Amino acid sequence: MANTLVVEKAKTSKIHEVDFDNLSFGSTYTDHMLVCDYVNGEWKAPKIVPYQPISLDPSAKIFHYGQSIFEGMKAYKDRDGGVWLFRPLENFKRLNKSAKRLAIPELPEAYFMEGLTTLLQLERDWVPQNPGSSLYVRPFMFASGTGFHASPADEYKFIIACAPSGAYFSGKVKVLIEETYSRAANGGVGYAKAGGNYAGQFYPTQLAVEKGYQQVIWTDDNNHEFIEEAGAMNVFVRINDTLITAPTNDRILDGVTRKSILDIAKSEGIATEVRKISVKEVVEAAKNGSLKELFGAGTAAVVSPIAAFGYQGVDYDLPELENSYASLLKQRITDIQYNRAEDKFGWRYKVI
Amino acid sequence: MANTLVVEKAKTSKIHEVDFDNLSFGSTYTDHMLVCDYVNGEWKAPKIVPYQPISLDPSAKIFHYGQSIFEGMKAYKDRDGGVWLFRPLENFKRLNKSAKRLAIPELPEAYFMEGLTTLLQLERDWVPQNPGSSLYVRPFMFASGTGFHASPADEYKFIIACAPSGAYFSGKVKVLIEETYSRAANGGVGYAKAGGNYAGQFYPTQLAVEKGYQQVIWTDDNNHEFIEEAGAMNVFVRINDTLITAPTNDRILDGVTRKSILDIAKSEGIATEVRKISVKEVVEAAKNGSLKELFGAGTAAVVSPIAAFGYQGVDYDLPELENSYASLLKQRITDIQYNRAEDKFGWRYKVI
Repeated sequence: MANTLVVEKAKTSKIHEVDFDNLSFGSTYTDHMLVCDYVNGEWKAPKIVPYQPISLDPSAKIFHYGQSIFEGMKAYKDRDGGVWLFRPLENFKRLNKSAKRLAIPELPEAYFMEGLTTLLQLERDWVPQNPGSSLYVRPFMFASGTGFHASPADEYKFIIACAPSGAYFSGKVKVLIEETYSRAANGGVGYAKAGGNYAGQFYPTQLAVEKGYQQVIWTDDNNHEFIEEAGAMNVFVRINDTLITAPTNDRILDGVTRKSILDIAKSEGIATEVRKISVKEVVEAAKNGSLKELFGAGTAAVVSPIAAFGYQGVDYDLPELENSYASLLKQRITDIQYNRAEDKFGWRYKVI
Repeated sequence: MANTLVVEKAKTSKIHEVDFDNLSFGSTYTDHMLVCDYVNGEWKAPKIVPYQPISLDPSAKIFHYGQSIFEGMKAYKDRDGGVWLFRPLENFKRLNKSAKRLAIPELPEAYFMEGLTTLLQLERDWVPQNPGSSLYVRPFMFASGTGFHASPADEYKFIIACAPSGAYFSGKVKVLIEETYSRAANGGVGYAKAGGNYAGQFYPTQLAVEKGYQQVIWTDDNNHEFIEEAGAMNVFVRINDTLITAPTNDRILDGVTRKSILDIAKSEGIATEVRKISVKEVVEAAKNGSLKELFGAGTAAVVSPIAAFGYQGVDYDLPELENSYASLLKQRITDIQYNRAEDKFGWRYKVI
């Protein structure tokens, strides 16, 4: 397919307007994007076109019924100018899992993989080389079909856009363990990267920010008894020398970074446990000194260490460690991503 | 404000292309729409412009993070050509409740009410007069601000579009009481008219349709023990001569039709109860013959009678009643809506 992929090149490039030494996250876009339309019951062949506005009828279902999903990926440039992706097939598989749950037609693998690599080959100069920076890649899919009737759309768009980006967060964050609001229902869409999952988090996060926290630790919606996610990331807890994370289920996202960290930790000889973690256990571990680390894990931030958490009006500080699992695991995973170390797991994917 | 509202009229009208005797629901749009932009920290004055496509950057947050809400209303034409709304302030208040939960800035009341009435005065010829038909009015709001960062947008659009429409459903429906999937979490966004709430319902509804049902009865996400909503409507259960509906909470939409029906039922001398209804109670009532009616209630369908429900592999038929509450209440509420009867509740709102 790659040979037949239609590419309409931008007449001029915006790349010289970009300050690659001072990149924010996801707010500058490259010259091109991939577009693929689902019409008449099938996904048509993707095209690469200049990055441009999308025109939609006001009755397009994306505006009304929330049929939208996305993925987050990064392209990394190594010292020799080689460009790499990290486990892109995992993102493709999850995109289609999300699509199915949101009643969006699944995308053919070749459209995703060949479209993605062709786009990145074209945009290779946009992949930054500074430490911690990368080309953030955003595949997304939404309902473009029309009608004020609450039913799945008959037309969809799949787009891949790219944004050269610096690091997502800076510094350690203080988080609030949520006791009122929830991110996901049992039997709901929490495991999907559905737009609506994110919109629902903003207001509770704003309330947490007003109280002096930066993020929310989400708990189950039944009794707020178990820890589920941290902001828009999976969450890891280190008690003594054991690294624990919640099992994925229909409320928790099957994060690519989450499962990679589990594999790396095991290969480093770190004891890992995938099991439910109660808030009570974390609070008690904080009190008796066995709670060593808390961190979020996701594509954007990779690993986001937590400095303190609040629960029922009390703040609990995490210790400052010389050799944290968070920094070790972040080093190991980014060494693979940036082609600085052997890739014994076979996770790197050469773009060019 | 109405006097200063900028109106850009369409050069030609599409109204002569419309077959008002064969209207579907929400698939033909009028000549104009109201548009209001939130930029630089405030809602700018609304404008009426020709109905036209919306152009958005691919990084607009509506495509990624699900910040979208809507309302559903109808404008009704009486025999004398007068145009009426039904409790429009209730829709306005709910729009802002939804906005708050989705971290979208709240809209000034005057922008909503005067924008709405001015638009409908302009589109008065589009309000159909045939029995059961109306001008469906769709206010909606979404994140137009950009960025691949999971945080609230800094720009939004509020739009009102209108669609001359026939009846929403035809005939009685067969519904499945859901035991696996859920619509809403405790502490989630179920009470808001958020786009994501609808997208999450489509797949479970498709599964129910494959089994021979038309809609799903949603139950709580903890144990699927209590009845919450019917499809995208509130649900009413009649056991013997008592009409029961679930109390609103953070999972259940505070439906305008729902509360109007409760008030009308009381004024008709019908015993009403607002309380949790267990699936077990409904199944037992079906078995012992005390279950007389089940129906959905919402703006689009008004009242949608249910002919049968499925639960754990067994179908339970509802009796065919000569004088159902569903038909009585639908008659009473539509008599008020279409200005065919006295409006002792003060619900009608004259547009022109």
